[in-house]
Amino acid sequence: MTTIAILGATGYTALELIKILLRHPKASITALTSREETRSVGAVHQSLAGRLDLPLESLTPKEIAKRAECVFCCLPHTASANVVPELLQSGAKVIDLGADYRLDTAEVFETWYDAKHPDPARLGKVPYGLPELFRSQIIDAELVANPGCYPTSIILPLAPLLQSKGIEPTDIIIDSKSGVSGAGRTPKQTTLYPECNESIAAYGIGTHRHTPEIEQILSAASGETVKVIFTPHLTPMDRGILSVIYAKPTKPVSQTELLAVLREFYCEEPFVHVVEHLPATKDVAGTNFVHMTVRVTDGRVVVLCVVDNLIKGASGAAVQNFNLMFGYPETTALM
Amino acid sequence: MTTIAILGATGYTALELIKILLRHPKASITALTSREETRSVGAVHQSLAGRLDLPLESLTPKEIAKRAECVFCCLPHTASANVVPELLQSGAKVIDLGADYRLDTAEVFETWYDAKHPDPARLGKVPYGLPELFRSQIIDAELVANPGCYPTSIILPLAPLLQSKGIEPTDIIIDSKSGVSGAGRTPKQTTLYPECNESIAAYGIGTHRHTPEIEQILSAASGETVKVIFTPHLTPMDRGILSVIYAKPTKPVSQTELLAVLREFYCEEPFVHVVEHLPATKDVAGTNFVHMTVRVTDGRVVVLCVVDNLIKGASGAAVQNFNLMFGYPETTALM
Amino acid sequence: MTTIAILGATGYTALELIKILLRHPKASITALTSREETRSVGAVHQSLAGRLDLPLESLTPKEIAKRAECVFCCLPHTASANVVPELLQSGAKVIDLGADYRLDTAEVFETWYDAKHPDPARLGKVPYGLPELFRSQIIDAELVANPGCYPTSIILPLAPLLQSKGIEPTDIIIDSKSGVSGAGRTPKQTTLYPECNESIAAYGIGTHRHTPEIEQILSAASGETVKVIFTPHLTPMDRGILSVIYAKPTKPVSQTELLAVLREFYCEEPFVHVVEHLPATKDVAGTNFVHMTVRVTDGRVVVLCVVDNLIKGASGAAVQNFNLMFGYPETTALM
Amino acid sequence: MTTIAILGATGYTALELIKILLRHPKASITALTSREETRSVGAVHQSLAGRLDLPLESLTPKEIAKRAECVFCCLPHTASANVVPELLQSGAKVIDLGADYRLDTAEVFETWYDAKHPDPARLGKVPYGLPELFRSQIIDAELVANPGCYPTSIILPLAPLLQSKGIEPTDIIIDSKSGVSGAGRTPKQTTLYPECNESIAAYGIGTHRHTPEIEQILSAASGETVKVIFTPHLTPMDRGILSVIYAKPTKPVSQTELLAVLREFYCEEPFVHVVEHLPATKDVAGTNFVHMTVRVTDGRVVVLCVVDNLIKGASGAAVQNFNLMFGYPETTALM
Repeated sequence: MTTIAILGATGYTALELIKILLRHPKASITALTSREETRSVGAVHQSLAGRLDLPLESLTPKEIAKRAECVFCCLPHTASANVVPELLQSGAKVIDLGADYRLDTAEVFETWYDAKHPDPARLGKVPYGLPELFRSQIIDAELVANPGCYPTSIILPLAPLLQSKGIEPTDIIIDSKSGVSGAGRTPKQTTLYPECNESIAAYGIGTHRHTPEIEQILSAASGETVKVIFTPHLTPMDRGILSVIYAKPTKPVSQTELLAVLREFYCEEPFVHVVEHLPATKDVAGTNFVHMTVRVTDGRVVVLCVVDNLIKGASGAAVQNFNLMFGYPETTALM
Repeated sequence: MTTIAILGATGYTALELIKILLRHPKASITALTSREETRSVGAVHQSLAGRLDLPLESLTPKEIAKRAECVFCCLPHTASANVVPELLQSGAKVIDLGADYRLDTAEVFETWYDAKHPDPARLGKVPYGLPELFRSQIIDAELVANPGCYPTSIILPLAPLLQSKGIEPTDIIIDSKSGVSGAGRTPKQTTLYPECNESIAAYGIGTHRHTPEIEQILSAASGETVKVIFTPHLTPMDRGILSVIYAKPTKPVSQTELLAVLREFYCEEPFVHVVEHLPATKDVAGTNFVHMTVRVTDGRVVVLCVVDNLIKGASGAAVQNFNLMFGYPETTALM
Repeated sequence: MTTIAILGATGYTALELIKILLRHPKASITALTSREETRSVGAVHQSLAGRLDLPLESLTPKEIAKRAECVFCCLPHTASANVVPELLQSGAKVIDLGADYRLDTAEVFETWYDAKHPDPARLGKVPYGLPELFRSQIIDAELVANPGCYPTSIILPLAPLLQSKGIEPTDIIIDSKSGVSGAGRTPKQTTLYPECNESIAAYGIGTHRHTPEIEQILSAASGETVKVIFTPHLTPMDRGILSVIYAKPTKPVSQTELLAVLREFYCEEPFVHVVEHLPATKDVAGTNFVHMTVRVTDGRVVVLCVVDNLIKGASGAAVQNFNLMFGYPETTALM
Repeated sequence: MTTIAILGATGYTALELIKILLRHPKASITALTSREETRSVGAVHQSLAGRLDLPLESLTPKEIAKRAECVFCCLPHTASANVVPELLQSGAKVIDLGADYRLDTAEVFETWYDAKHPDPARLGKVPYGLPELFRSQIIDAELVANPGCYPTSIILPLAPLLQSKGIEPTDIIIDSKSGVSGAGRTPKQTTLYPECNESIAAYGIGTHRHTPEIEQILSAASGETVKVIFTPHLTPMDRGILSVIYAKPTKPVSQTELLAVLREFYCEEPFVHVVEHLPATKDVAGTNFVHMTVRVTDGRVVVLCVVDNLIKGASGAAVQNFNLMFGYPETTALM
């Protein structure tokens, strides 16, 4: 049994994490923190009524590490990096669901997040928590940077195609559609029901913070400098991301060949399914699965991938990493 | 041509009002106010881009009355009653879309709204802006209290049945379902998209502020003391209210007879349609129409009525009142 | 390990059942049937891609019973009762998710379902699969009648209140709101997306087939003749039922007392939670949980209950029954 | 006053057309046809209850032309071209909302629509009903080919950029998202509420029938051969299309310059607004307006455009054409 703390327990990723961990036979949630909220977790998340009875507390890193062997950080950027050093020093392992440890340099972080990084020395040494690509590093890690939701849906289908030199690394256009839960639980006019419902819109063209994360990990995975155009959209649904990616093949190629590359790459992976049909976000909603496929049309490669933004795009991946870091079967609580 | 000011122009009812008035051949919007917002109206409501070019301003009642012959107040409770006296004194006519002038006594207002009424002397003398019941009073009014959205969907079908003594006045159960736009545009966690979407819930049982309004108007319309149990619901849709009302017949009665009562009552009304089928909120979405029907089952009368909460339940009714008060054909801009 | 067949595997309840059983450590799905569909289950339900590889087959009851110890019937009415006798004779246990064995007499069945019952002799002897009320009968049963979705959300909160003589048994008004998945997967204009989306409507007032089921089970549970007015609604969401029930207390009673009755009744039940707040369907979406509460207002009792119509209202309850019938812990695969 | 017939009056475009025409002071609907439906239009479209009382009839072209000066065809492909010759011969003017007269050659039609064209001689001579590009031809036409919904959202923003030689004509990637009403009102499993809700998916990559229409009109408008990659999506909303278009600039160019091209081109157009912000489909829902903008990022031009698929993408454009063909002010009934 592993004791677990969740920092920043009021949001949607924390709720999803709690639900998954309640099904995990070896996980015991022992602490939940919030800077502002002091009610019980069941009051903040009504769906937990009768299932988990813990208060939300304001705790120091030391207090947290006393109660928990594993700490999941669901915190805004820089907030994780402010507590992670002390958590690690106190002996806890940490899975950071935020962005603080995903980028390799403080410089890139500071450019995109417009904030000074509180723990720059660790950058570049923290495994990126995508087990399908970095499993061996995650197993031995004390700290894992859980991937962003969009990057998960983009890196997984592109990495094999780039590694196999099937597509050009610098002519990649990504059109991603996300459910609104990805925008968090803090009240904002832009995510009110009557603003989002019955409407789809792009946002953050050329400025979304997941762009450098996508480029960095794909460059690392492929050994080439990868450049992308990335357009995210807010879609009128709770959950799910569909990424449609337009790439140029390096040479004339068939759909069959590209599907074979993906199938070969993921044939052993329990959560990644390469499918023939065009996947819908609903096909993977509420699960840790990834469905992907590819089309070739008029000399272009069109890659499609769906994930649940809160599960494989956040809390499911975090538990997958937890399982690896603590020696449990990787799929525990996730099938 | 009538000049028009809209106070509190940042919300959903104001937006709907602007859209209707832009189609009105005799209305000219000359002032829009906001206490906090100073951007242009097109920046606050993107759907008005290129259609109306006015700033949001902070104006005194005198300044408003100089610019506008008719003032629509889309303000929180007590805010209207703070400016209405001066607006009227300055010669403007006023249509208040809020609750300040709907109730007959300051005592009832203060009980339900938990606030002191700023203009108690006028209470009881302001026509209730439901033309189907109070047209003759509205025509000559300087100030009209525009009805609440729920009450519109409840009073319209019940008034004829109560007046004709067809149903018991004190055994009425109302189960109403509203779209989320009824909750306004101020950011709140409870109306975030991921909270409301894919979910329906009741709220305010026994405590909703529309309860005394429903009882007062129905009592006035029927000449009997009417008491209701009222349960509103937040429904995962933008627009529309469906009220399903359970009443006891005063004597054995058929569906045909009750439908005849409704049809007779509303045969001349341009916006009220008595239908045979069970109406859906979508049937009237985006319109000023009201669809209603009735069923008799196991000795109970079940009355059903749908309106668009922002149009017939707010801004459409307001323009209907405006048309009456300024001598334009009642349906102008509303068909 | 128990072998399992699912009859009528193309619909939403079957899909949900498969997903739950895939998480069940002691269940092995060995046969899936369809009268029309011959593709693999992964082609019919894309969300099962890579998770279950079985064809949809047209099989005789004998063939089914050879492959499966437990048969779940997800069939239209009368279709189950046409095959159940032979399935039982061949040694299989059966859980019928349809309506064929819920009612006690062929006469009532034929009145409401407008069809001759193929197996009338068994009626009145089949346990109703609501473990919270009929657990001991279910444990020993060879055939269980899984409850309807609406009745589950209505019977569970009302049974304790009726048994304790807290409310009048013949003055009960039920206003239920269901997600669209309850209407099934057969293409119909009435359940097309653009018909249901952004709209709520009542249907089947006084004629819904769940009415006699509700009255029969509540009468049995309370020892009194129970009569209800039942109004179901189609609500613009996939999943979930909210039942709001208006009853008359038998004597003046407080909310606290009624909550105590419910809490006492369900204190040992793993899936039923009595809550203080007004529950939303989302609180239980995707789970086998039931949240219920009660309000007292103006001398009326208002009871509120939410379930997921496809889980606790169908497939989750079916697996709960399966667990009981085959000696597995009741919550297996359901937490 | 102009008499009007609508052929194929049971679908969503016909409903929208009727609603617009009911607001048109010079239009009188005199005939509605359906091959299968014989109920009144109010029974088929509940939202028309009390607003239009006409039967759905099965009529010959001659009978139609006797009753109507203008015929709107809302028919499946080839059905229009089967009746149009006789309608024109009988003296009616025709606006075809289907695809039969959009393409220039029978060969292209037959390749993409997999059907023989019934009236090939007229192809290439019928004006494309996009007044912003082809107004002068429409004014004098007896027959107009109303544009497809996707093409409207794509051609309008691209035509000025191609005409001004600002973007490369053969490296254009179009990622379009449409509401479900675009898929029509015929019951299909793929457009059932529980299939579409809470889900987004691409479809018809490389095979959508609007592709040749887009390429033909853009080639004609720009004088160059235009080639596009076109990916449509089904989005969980009723109405609206957002097209996000990725193009290569012909030379380094700024956002300001490209916005200026669009603004200059559309400065006189009443329905087209070039905006600074990223437009949402909701901004134009229920209107005949088009909002478009452009971004330049990493050397790519990203063009964004929103329309209501049923209004500017179908019935609104049809009435705009009707106004031009019959000499009414172009914006009548459309503001």
